[in-house]
Amino acid sequence: MQRSVLSKVKPFIEETIVQLYCTTFPQRLTIADLGCSTGTNSLFIISELLKAISEVCQKLGRRSPPEFQLFLNDLPENDFNTVFKSTPNFYEKFRSDNGQEFGPIFVGGVPGSFYNRLFPTETLNFVHSSFGLHWLSQIPQGIENNKGNVYMARTSPSNVYQAYAEQFNRDFSVFSSLRSKEMMIGGCMVISIIGRRCSDPPSKDYCCHLEVFSKTLRDMVSEGLIEEVKLDSFNLPYYAPSIEEVQTIIESEGSFDLDWIKTFDNDWDTSEDYVNREFVHDKIKSGKFFAKTMRAVIEPIFVSHFGDSAIEDLFCRYAKDVGEILAKERPMITILVFGMTKN
Amino acid sequence: MQRSVLSKVKPFIEETIVQLYCTTFPQRLTIADLGCSTGTNSLFIISELLKAISEVCQKLGRRSPPEFQLFLNDLPENDFNTVFKSTPNFYEKFRSDNGQEFGPIFVGGVPGSFYNRLFPTETLNFVHSSFGLHWLSQIPQGIENNKGNVYMARTSPSNVYQAYAEQFNRDFSVFSSLRSKEMMIGGCMVISIIGRRCSDPPSKDYCCHLEVFSKTLRDMVSEGLIEEVKLDSFNLPYYAPSIEEVQTIIESEGSFDLDWIKTFDNDWDTSEDYVNREFVHDKIKSGKFFAKTMRAVIEPIFVSHFGDSAIEDLFCRYAKDVGEILAKERPMITILVFGMTKN
Repeated sequence: MQRSVLSKVKPFIEETIVQLYCTTFPQRLTIADLGCSTGTNSLFIISELLKAISEVCQKLGRRSPPEFQLFLNDLPENDFNTVFKSTPNFYEKFRSDNGQEFGPIFVGGVPGSFYNRLFPTETLNFVHSSFGLHWLSQIPQGIENNKGNVYMARTSPSNVYQAYAEQFNRDFSVFSSLRSKEMMIGGCMVISIIGRRCSDPPSKDYCCHLEVFSKTLRDMVSEGLIEEVKLDSFNLPYYAPSIEEVQTIIESEGSFDLDWIKTFDNDWDTSEDYVNREFVHDKIKSGKFFAKTMRAVIEPIFVSHFGDSAIEDLFCRYAKDVGEILAKERPMITILVFGMTKN
Repeated sequence: MQRSVLSKVKPFIEETIVQLYCTTFPQRLTIADLGCSTGTNSLFIISELLKAISEVCQKLGRRSPPEFQLFLNDLPENDFNTVFKSTPNFYEKFRSDNGQEFGPIFVGGVPGSFYNRLFPTETLNFVHSSFGLHWLSQIPQGIENNKGNVYMARTSPSNVYQAYAEQFNRDFSVFSSLRSKEMMIGGCMVISIIGRRCSDPPSKDYCCHLEVFSKTLRDMVSEGLIEEVKLDSFNLPYYAPSIEEVQTIIESEGSFDLDWIKTFDNDWDTSEDYVNREFVHDKIKSGKFFAKTMRAVIEPIFVSHFGDSAIEDLFCRYAKDVGEILAKERPMITILVFGMTKN
């Protein structure tokens, strides 16, 4: 799913970095990808950015392209080894695609939470973060009454929405303020995040996949497979903001100007073609596809709260529950993508 | 052994970086440790450097200490994950030892060979490399006649010494030239390397532990456990230079001034106290200790040439052969440590 979003977002990221480069033609571009994860996506967007600049350098006939310092960041538990082992091939492919005289490029890894400082003062030109900032720095406090749900749901008490919104506000403000210290004036940031189209919280589109997840867990409670008290005290540190919220926070934090903001709707099963249909043709396959995507991000959080005994059963059931929905309707996940410039 | 050498070398590294800091009082110090390996040693020397600067800042009453950007480098196959997982504790200990107002520090990892460019132009203030540069970029060419030995030995033909010395000359020149591009003018570099006291190559002190290793392998050949042709084509990409060689290369490469050079002699078994004795008290224990140290570095090279079937037997036998020597004499490994300034 991340790759599917990245390819939609790519033209906007490329335009932003090309504009940034062409404004000042710096001798060195320092780029950070925050929440890089591991695997092939980690270097995918970076290599697309470099290609875009290589093309503009060729078009403009610039004989001395910039040096690139590229920092991949994620939490210290991330598998950086796999990413690092892929760097020799990455360098080789880069040189064969862009020519020996373009670059050089220098890849490094930076372990740590992006809710803390990660880089020295005024050292970054460009920051990219994809699919990271809807994860909060902590579970909002004071939501003990959100029983039977794992996120703000249509049936949640109103203080739950308030607590989630405030936690996101605090986290995104802190993130912006930290990055503004690390970035040079005129530096740009492009962020992709799961969001919602409605500004009214108890609406359908923004958390349906987590409401299904809550339903799966409640079924397991009623069958005695999970303790009710465990479910009642479980909430995800996750928030999908609206466009208006993002705009308001950027404005009130004040370090960045919001240049543009876009929304994209993404199918839950991005491998489905949906030709002449408004539902998937194989609910089992599609349910499994989406459950696998969710498992990759939710498993560690789930296991640290519930232990690992129920995990296989949980995601089997979740796949089935998701499949039932996808056989009848075509729900979407909304992605917000926005570009900001340090003022 | 590395830790034992580092604690001897520490005062010289500290003096160098404190002098560097006190010459210009930069707002940011960018430090690279090349060949950091994994485990506790990786951050040990870095934290000692920071402590030294923290102390000098306190002594001088400086209210705005520098920011520190710390890069740990090793080959892409190195286990960076383990080092990165230790960074949260490292940051916490650093703050409790040096106070909240010192720093901040930012740790990153850079995968790649130090015989290639690793950092953008003129971005480093200080480079440290310990126990890395005696490893050559490749096995010297034209030493097919070095049969029955794995390194230049007293019984090697004279072209073997020549080929090893030339390969080191090329590699260390390339290393110096690359680092001079990456370092700011006035930047300092401290290097520890296994060396030899004699400038005459076929002398005893510089490769005794590898002569024993060759002997162990020859025994295994004679018992049919290893193919003779395999041993004959096996040579280690390793070279222990003399002080004079290091001086000559630095001078002729020309980017750095050699500020100081020291030699230390280290026992093979650094855990032995040698009180009133010139041999170890437990040859089995000491042999195992040294064989384990050697195995950590030689195993991957050995396995890629011989496969892994003989590896356990090899290091058992090597431990025994080493033990026999340590029961009779007290051989040393010579370490050269030198400081250079970019001119």
